[in-house]
Amino acid sequence: MQRKTVLVTGVGSTTGISVIKGLRGQDEFRVRIVGTDTHGGNRIAGSSFCDAFYTVSPAGDPGYLAELLRICEREGVDLLVPIVDPELPVIAEHAALFADIGTEAVVAKSETVRTCNDKLATCRRLAEGGVPVPESRAADEVAAPGELSYPVFVKPRGGVSSRDAFRVDTQEEFARARGRVSDLVVQELLAGEEYTTDVFCGPDGRVIAVVPRRRVQTRAGISYKGVTCHDERLIRWGVRICEVLDLRGPANIQCMVDGDDVRYFEVNPRFSGSLPLTIAAGVNTPLQMLKLWDGQSAPDDLLPFEEVFMTRYWAEIFHPVEEPVPVS
Amino acid sequence: MQRKTVLVTGVGSTTGISVIKGLRGQDEFRVRIVGTDTHGGNRIAGSSFCDAFYTVSPAGDPGYLAELLRICEREGVDLLVPIVDPELPVIAEHAALFADIGTEAVVAKSETVRTCNDKLATCRRLAEGGVPVPESRAADEVAAPGELSYPVFVKPRGGVSSRDAFRVDTQEEFARARGRVSDLVVQELLAGEEYTTDVFCGPDGRVIAVVPRRRVQTRAGISYKGVTCHDERLIRWGVRICEVLDLRGPANIQCMVDGDDVRYFEVNPRFSGSLPLTIAAGVNTPLQMLKLWDGQSAPDDLLPFEEVFMTRYWAEIFHPVEEPVPVS
Repeated sequence: MQRKTVLVTGVGSTTGISVIKGLRGQDEFRVRIVGTDTHGGNRIAGSSFCDAFYTVSPAGDPGYLAELLRICEREGVDLLVPIVDPELPVIAEHAALFADIGTEAVVAKSETVRTCNDKLATCRRLAEGGVPVPESRAADEVAAPGELSYPVFVKPRGGVSSRDAFRVDTQEEFARARGRVSDLVVQELLAGEEYTTDVFCGPDGRVIAVVPRRRVQTRAGISYKGVTCHDERLIRWGVRICEVLDLRGPANIQCMVDGDDVRYFEVNPRFSGSLPLTIAAGVNTPLQMLKLWDGQSAPDDLLPFEEVFMTRYWAEIFHPVEEPVPVS
Repeated sequence: MQRKTVLVTGVGSTTGISVIKGLRGQDEFRVRIVGTDTHGGNRIAGSSFCDAFYTVSPAGDPGYLAELLRICEREGVDLLVPIVDPELPVIAEHAALFADIGTEAVVAKSETVRTCNDKLATCRRLAEGGVPVPESRAADEVAAPGELSYPVFVKPRGGVSSRDAFRVDTQEEFARARGRVSDLVVQELLAGEEYTTDVFCGPDGRVIAVVPRRRVQTRAGISYKGVTCHDERLIRWGVRICEVLDLRGPANIQCMVDGDDVRYFEVNPRFSGSLPLTIAAGVNTPLQMLKLWDGQSAPDDLLPFEEVFMTRYWAEIFHPVEEPVPVS
């Protein structure tokens, strides 16, 4: 059996652990997993599922890139799978440095990552490619709050999760939001239900998996109940978005569906936190990554999947307390 | 080995699953677990860990009590462990009906449950027993908002979780909060760190376990990182609170610790969602329940525990989709 050493970043996160579940849940490769996180290994759960673990600086730290390169070299990492949003542009931009030491970074091209990290640029690029998006503009380009027809939705152009993203009902609220948060995008407010589509593209851009799911219930931004759906529209749009953005490797795509009206508003060029549902539906994208980045040929058609309902619960990892815990 | 049939309610919740972990994680009794929840068994994770599962009406429904009695009778339930807050008063008040069919409800006395479900009554009762609490009064008894020294903290007397509980900084905010939410308690704002103490008392009121833990990080009201602490003050106060409230079975007690200043503000007379940490620290209170309610004698001293750090991650249960999922 072939051996692969895979470095997964952010193993303290649900997404990091989800990727590990995919890598462990296959028997075509013997995988050694190196994990990183900004937290200590005895303060997160995910380190327990790794064969080696390193605490690293945050991606914004000047030393981050050198640290990660050193770990990849020391551990003989074949594939580097970045999980944490601020890491993506750094790793995408410097993919050649990793290639030089024999590590392939499984991430979209630098330009694509930059587009995806900017929610206004994402919508503009998708619209150019014929993908339906909410009407969107930079809040700073709104000359007078009276121009907008309320309610609208505002969010930071570069925001992660749903921080500072909210509905705005009046001109006064809009003016206040714009004064408080810089670089806001203002969009028409979308109705309907939220869907996420997990997609996966080979190193040549070939789209091999498009699995839409309805987010039934979320907690702290993570789907904890969800169901995969054979929605042909969302599958077709998923393929189209991969092409328009020229994606490589994993991505997850968010849209709102309101009857016949489908609108895409966000693309994260990384694996998703609800990846275990896609895997349970029959599409182990981390395994596909191992195969395609190993040079195996892509399947002719999109990988088939089942409709499956996922529900989640907390599991625990316990760490001994090395020294008495200081009492506050 | 002795057999016991235990009915755990609310097995769709973290707390319900936590109790099941305790019941499964021992080898002194052969336990058959009957679970209930208001959700269908194929839409929650916890049903998968039960030997039998029933969907029931919410506790507020007139048919709830009869439904639960029928299940206990049909399944030959020895012990009934209520998990969901609105169920506690119903089951505590009608414990005799369950006793008549051979089912013992492991819950505090009706009067204690009523006190605990009222946050103002809880603080008053604790204060009478010499336990330190935040200064508390009914918002409706505040003649003029100017009487209060701000900031203060307000929350509904009968509230669960942290809904409608918030800091209030000005007279205007207080007036607005009082107008919007009825039956508010207004308390002095507490500083410091939040601790939860899991306690367990035998059927005769004997206190056998008091395990304090610091809530390091919470998500959606559930501790997802926490650490048990040998804090002698909190252990002594835990024993005292069990006595003052005349508790039976499980409870979890919340306080804020700010240096030497400890203040108790909430008691939930049921198992806690972070019970797995208490179990990992060496005190399996669901096992203690099986032993004590079986007539075994209580230990002479409080059960010893270790200092352990818990971190959590999502695990998944998948259910097949019986029929095509309707596309919105």
